[in-house]
Amino acid sequence: MTKNTSIASLGEFGLIDRLTENWPSFQPSTLKGIGDDAAVIAAGDQVLVVTTDLLLEGIHFNLMYTPLKYLGYKAVVVNLSDVYAMNALPKQITVSIGISSRFTLEMVEELYQGIRAACEKYQVDLAGGDTSSSLTGMVISITALGTAAPGEVTYRSGASPNDLLCVSGDLGGAYMGLQLLERENEVFKVNPQMKPKLEGFDYILQRQLKPEARYDIPGIFKNLDIRPTSMIDISDGLSSEILHLCKASGVGCRLHEDKIPYDEQTRDMALEMNINPLVAALNGGEDYELLFTIPIADFDKVKNDTDITVIGHMTRPEDGAMLVTGAGALIPLVAQGFNHLSK
Amino acid sequence: MTKNTSIASLGEFGLIDRLTENWPSFQPSTLKGIGDDAAVIAAGDQVLVVTTDLLLEGIHFNLMYTPLKYLGYKAVVVNLSDVYAMNALPKQITVSIGISSRFTLEMVEELYQGIRAACEKYQVDLAGGDTSSSLTGMVISITALGTAAPGEVTYRSGASPNDLLCVSGDLGGAYMGLQLLERENEVFKVNPQMKPKLEGFDYILQRQLKPEARYDIPGIFKNLDIRPTSMIDISDGLSSEILHLCKASGVGCRLHEDKIPYDEQTRDMALEMNINPLVAALNGGEDYELLFTIPIADFDKVKNDTDITVIGHMTRPEDGAMLVTGAGALIPLVAQGFNHLSK
Repeated sequence: MTKNTSIASLGEFGLIDRLTENWPSFQPSTLKGIGDDAAVIAAGDQVLVVTTDLLLEGIHFNLMYTPLKYLGYKAVVVNLSDVYAMNALPKQITVSIGISSRFTLEMVEELYQGIRAACEKYQVDLAGGDTSSSLTGMVISITALGTAAPGEVTYRSGASPNDLLCVSGDLGGAYMGLQLLERENEVFKVNPQMKPKLEGFDYILQRQLKPEARYDIPGIFKNLDIRPTSMIDISDGLSSEILHLCKASGVGCRLHEDKIPYDEQTRDMALEMNINPLVAALNGGEDYELLFTIPIADFDKVKNDTDITVIGHMTRPEDGAMLVTGAGALIPLVAQGFNHLSK
Repeated sequence: MTKNTSIASLGEFGLIDRLTENWPSFQPSTLKGIGDDAAVIAAGDQVLVVTTDLLLEGIHFNLMYTPLKYLGYKAVVVNLSDVYAMNALPKQITVSIGISSRFTLEMVEELYQGIRAACEKYQVDLAGGDTSSSLTGMVISITALGTAAPGEVTYRSGASPNDLLCVSGDLGGAYMGLQLLERENEVFKVNPQMKPKLEGFDYILQRQLKPEARYDIPGIFKNLDIRPTSMIDISDGLSSEILHLCKASGVGCRLHEDKIPYDEQTRDMALEMNINPLVAALNGGEDYELLFTIPIADFDKVKNDTDITVIGHMTRPEDGAMLVTGAGALIPLVAQGFNHLSK
């Protein structure tokens, strides 16, 4: 009898764990394989970090409201964000695309204008790729390569109890931008004459459509003289990423609800849609901010920095991964982030 | 007025050229970007080669007659072949897959068994990847990394007039294997009770379903004390690959029809299907043999090697890229290889 296990029941991370269980290793240059934001490979006196992302039309993007130029830009940025999350600097990307016959040359050129704009902004080279036709929608697969000094690479696994949990920028904006775009797209489908109401929400729209990677954070670390003990980028939502740090580092955490930073526009749109802005920050994803831990002794160095917010601290593993509410209650953190496999 | 240029009219290579025209470069470590089998990146005292391939269901593979295990194996091999074509050794791969809800865990595990078998055979590490759901078929994107000593990397661009044009193994088998599978699949669709007639064609079926990359060729070069002046792997058909070498090296060539090596099974199946086996070799593709040039002074070194066949020589560019027929007539070579974009 053939077994038929549903993949949705495992989830993305469960699936990867299952597929790569007891996988053998042959090359001593592979310093870190599966299980972080990027692979780490020894290359002479430096280490190389390598990360890859697959973006599929209808799953990761909707061309009804995503301009192709922004899509190209974002597809690069999400990969570069993984490189910065290793405390490395991106240098090269490869781009593979699959396109169906409904795409014209001009449309693909628009996509590449966005890819090029991101390459110029982040000073990375387009070093290769592959182009193919597709039977249905658009497929974009990007791999990014970066370098770091061997001692500078920051893994998910280095956090200790009492380390401070910090985040760059603000959270939940990309999710609220997506909700706004989907609402207006529904309105448009019913009445194509209706003008979309997007005014006053430029920030959250930009967070969704044309996010930036935190290329400035390595410089801020240097200026403040701090060295993160662990780091990850926020692509799936704060809860999911915190749980990754806790699991990889073997620690627990206390995340303080009232410390989580979000922008006014995120709050306003959340209120308008009867969504708790906290939920957008915890589970929304796609913010591409950096989440990291630092030794508690470094608190004075970050406390006045406007780019960094201390949102909690790590604990012993037996204390669990907990959200501390404004009223002081403890609620276990649950990863409810974007799980593309359960859709 | 919006222009709507058909992508099929440009072809894959025309499209890449158009999209990446005047693309800026920022990183001095990018030694070779787009335009060879792989990108070449400086990494300490070695160079790193990076290549990527996107495989889409219905375009590159048909799951009606492709066992998932073979598909996983082949998806790795086609990337490794690009690394060997740079005269480099593959070390790591990343694998991203997109799967629709019709795939069960057991099916994806079968795919990964094939990926793992290829990793074990070629001693490469699975260093990362991405997993996603897909709305329609299966998507596989693989990136391979390899290393070489800086002076050993072989580009498409190093051939000179009078260099000998050589090929490893035999050609056309993968194409005839595909024709056989498609014929039997058509029969099956009409009458599912009919047993497929595949006996006696194990070699060409293996060439199509479970090809190998020529990992042995770098060692053969060392043993014979030859250093290829240019090299490419045969994924799109001999004609197309020869034209790549000619264009990149700025030379012409004479390819001798009667020197092109093909296996008995390739010939027999071609005769059975009223196909000229030469056409299978010239335009069929997917043989994953290596095509390379060597100085004419090295002829004695290769003339008795059973793995290598001299099939012609390079000429001055003004002499053109020509097929020399058995009767001595000259016919211009035309790339009629697999062009996924004109399908």
